[in-house]
Amino acid sequence: MKGCPYGTHRVIEKKGMLPQPAWKISNDPEIYSNEILIDVKTLNIDSASFTQIKKQAKEENRTIESIILETVEKRGKQHNPVTGSGGMLIGTVLKIGEDLKGKIDLQEGDKIATLVSLSLTPLKIEKILAVKENSDQVDIEGKAILFQSGIYAKLPTDIDEKLALAVLDVAGAPAQTARLVKPSDIVVVIGAGGKSGLLTIYEAKKRAGVTGKVIGIEYSEEGCRKLRETGYADIVIQGDATNPVEILEKVKEATAEKLADVTINCVNIPDTEMASILVTRDRGIVYFFSMATSFTKAALGAEGIGKDVDMLIGNGYAKGHSEIALQIIRESEKIRRIFEEIYV
Amino acid sequence: MKGCPYGTHRVIEKKGMLPQPAWKISNDPEIYSNEILIDVKTLNIDSASFTQIKKQAKEENRTIESIILETVEKRGKQHNPVTGSGGMLIGTVLKIGEDLKGKIDLQEGDKIATLVSLSLTPLKIEKILAVKENSDQVDIEGKAILFQSGIYAKLPTDIDEKLALAVLDVAGAPAQTARLVKPSDIVVVIGAGGKSGLLTIYEAKKRAGVTGKVIGIEYSEEGCRKLRETGYADIVIQGDATNPVEILEKVKEATAEKLADVTINCVNIPDTEMASILVTRDRGIVYFFSMATSFTKAALGAEGIGKDVDMLIGNGYAKGHSEIALQIIRESEKIRRIFEEIYV
Ligand SMILES: NC(=O)c1ccc[n+]([C@@H]2O[C@H](COP(=O)([O-])OP(=O)(O)OC[C@H]3O[C@@H](n4cnc5c(N)ncnc54)[C@H](OP(=O)(O)O)[C@@H]3O)[C@@H](O)[C@H]2O)c1
Ligand SMILES: NC(=O)c1ccc[n+]([C@@H]2O[C@H](COP(=O)([O-])OP(=O)(O)OC[C@H]3O[C@@H](n4cnc5c(N)ncnc54)[C@H](OP(=O)(O)O)[C@@H]3O)[C@@H](O)[C@H]2O)c1
Repeated sequence: MKGCPYGTHRVIEKKGMLPQPAWKISNDPEIYSNEILIDVKTLNIDSASFTQIKKQAKEENRTIESIILETVEKRGKQHNPVTGSGGMLIGTVLKIGEDLKGKIDLQEGDKIATLVSLSLTPLKIEKILAVKENSDQVDIEGKAILFQSGIYAKLPTDIDEKLALAVLDVAGAPAQTARLVKPSDIVVVIGAGGKSGLLTIYEAKKRAGVTGKVIGIEYSEEGCRKLRETGYADIVIQGDATNPVEILEKVKEATAEKLADVTINCVNIPDTEMASILVTRDRGIVYFFSMATSFTKAALGAEGIGKDVDMLIGNGYAKGHSEIALQIIRESEKIRRIFEEIYV
Repeated sequence: MKGCPYGTHRVIEKKGMLPQPAWKISNDPEIYSNEILIDVKTLNIDSASFTQIKKQAKEENRTIESIILETVEKRGKQHNPVTGSGGMLIGTVLKIGEDLKGKIDLQEGDKIATLVSLSLTPLKIEKILAVKENSDQVDIEGKAILFQSGIYAKLPTDIDEKLALAVLDVAGAPAQTARLVKPSDIVVVIGAGGKSGLLTIYEAKKRAGVTGKVIGIEYSEEGCRKLRETGYADIVIQGDATNPVEILEKVKEATAEKLADVTINCVNIPDTEMASILVTRDRGIVYFFSMATSFTKAALGAEGIGKDVDMLIGNGYAKGHSEIALQIIRESEKIRRIFEEIYV
């Protein structure tokens, strides 16, 4: 039987919705003729979600495993009910539905990363093998399903697969940066020492060029050190993005009061909308890649201070985003080394 | 004493935050030297918030008044804790702080509308005089405070003040439409028969021109009738925007499968992100004006179907937005008549 290309045929609650906004979907491993069955190896929980899960586990004195299992049991997908976000996975293609076989660039046995969010991917976990707190990754035994409209990337052979998974999870950030940043721009990246932050800083510097200025804002000493080590940020500011007035003062100083043409928010915690808006010049652009962004806080916060900025929702997909992100790992020995320490 | 231009001096919970994201602010009517005290006449609750309050009142068998009073009592502002949104107000300037007096284009006694959200405006309600369910407006006795960075508009003399309040509440929508829509564009407006929807349709048609195509999607029979009556939409589609696949089919048909260059979401209910994304062409723009928009549903929903669209967060402020919105009322006898029936 053929399913809807967007996967509505698997939606249990509420019917008529697409799988992402739906509360519950079916994770039955029996595939439709236009679906792909994946033998899952590792989940990469998105950072806003993993940060929330860690906090909850501590507060409720239970394991991270139990929270993940509960979510997947209840919803048929790893869709964090608090943050609303997901992540990605890698695995091996077990079965390709007959309507797709031969028509797509994929064979059974291929290793792939899904490029659609876990928040809409039917997932059945048989067993959790290991939770890597340091890298937000979870090794499992289980099955997942990709819909006809679902995008994926074959894993490259020249990059470790765990590293590729980590990079592909945030591939949207550097791809959108490449589009938004123009030569000579002043660019502020908030959460610049993290995974998406480092990729964004690299791409921003490439686009802004020598006449531009790339400013990275990071919370921890360690993050700042890593960032400085790369040499890709013109200025590194240590600061707390939940304290907007402090951040504004520092960016004013660093830019002779010009503020940023483009600001890219790559943090993994809530309440950083105002800092992002304040450091951006009038008619500048704020790109919210962070999944902890609140729509109303951004919209009404900008209005509240009469700031005429264009604010973009971080679409996880942009044409060619996986190639762009993996290319950075190939181009930059420094970023590759930092990431290999964490993910490999 | 002089306060922070952004109002951080009034934040009670959590300190260091700006007043919009803060949970609680001080509504003490004793003003700082750079604040303005307003004698409030009418609140215009934003439509997503008012829709939620009405639903809650019904479910909990209590009055709309009691819900509004409880929110303002708890938070020091009319900041809907469920939707996160606010609205606007009109009133008379009671007192201008000494640091602003003579330096701004405002006198005590002037009638103004605040152009910053109620979700950040210190408000003390002495009495609720009337709740107008039909227009989302609430007449009150009370005081509000405008910070130094807070923007406002003097009420025009040629437009009824309740009508002006209604229009100014959604002034961001037509102003952003004017920027986004280019000649010959195909434009889809979702929730086109509402307040912001009608203003958006008018501005969209003006910008897209005879070679463009403006499509209005509306839920109710009545809304469709009103919209057709104006003649500003080239095509009117009756449909439910929470049913994305149905809406997609209808827009495909209306555009010969081209889909929209620009989609503007003006609804007042949740779960319409996917319809907005689906009806937009690859590399098109989706403008979410609706305060019921979920950041993650939009970001991960687009990714989930591999749709490379730019998605904008509806900043309530855009330079000149109040003039643009009021001008439509002056230019269009038809829209003025429809609005006067509701608001005057
Ligand atoms: N839009 C999409 O499609 C998409 C896809 C994937 C992920 N995401 C989201 O993108 C965000 C970043 O992901 P990631 O994997 O790059 O996360 P990450 O590696 O954990 O990086 C987050 C960074 O934010 C910094 N940070 C935390 N609190 C801060 C504060 N108060 N002030 C300044 N910086 C602070 C962290 O610094 P410390 O290490 O010093 O704490 C860290 O460098 C997450 O919200 C994630 O959910 C979005
Ligand atoms: N971004 C900002 O700064 C800002 C400022 C103010 C307001 N807003 C927001 O903008 C939105 C619109 O405000 P408004 O004052 O224009 O609201 P409104 O006058 O109540 O209009 C809402 C429209 O949405 C339609 N609608 C409702 N359910 C629908 C469905 N399932 N499918 C299709 N259409 C549907 C309604 O149609 P029916 O009447 O037929 O139900 C109505 O025409 C609200 O979410 C509001 O909170 C944003």
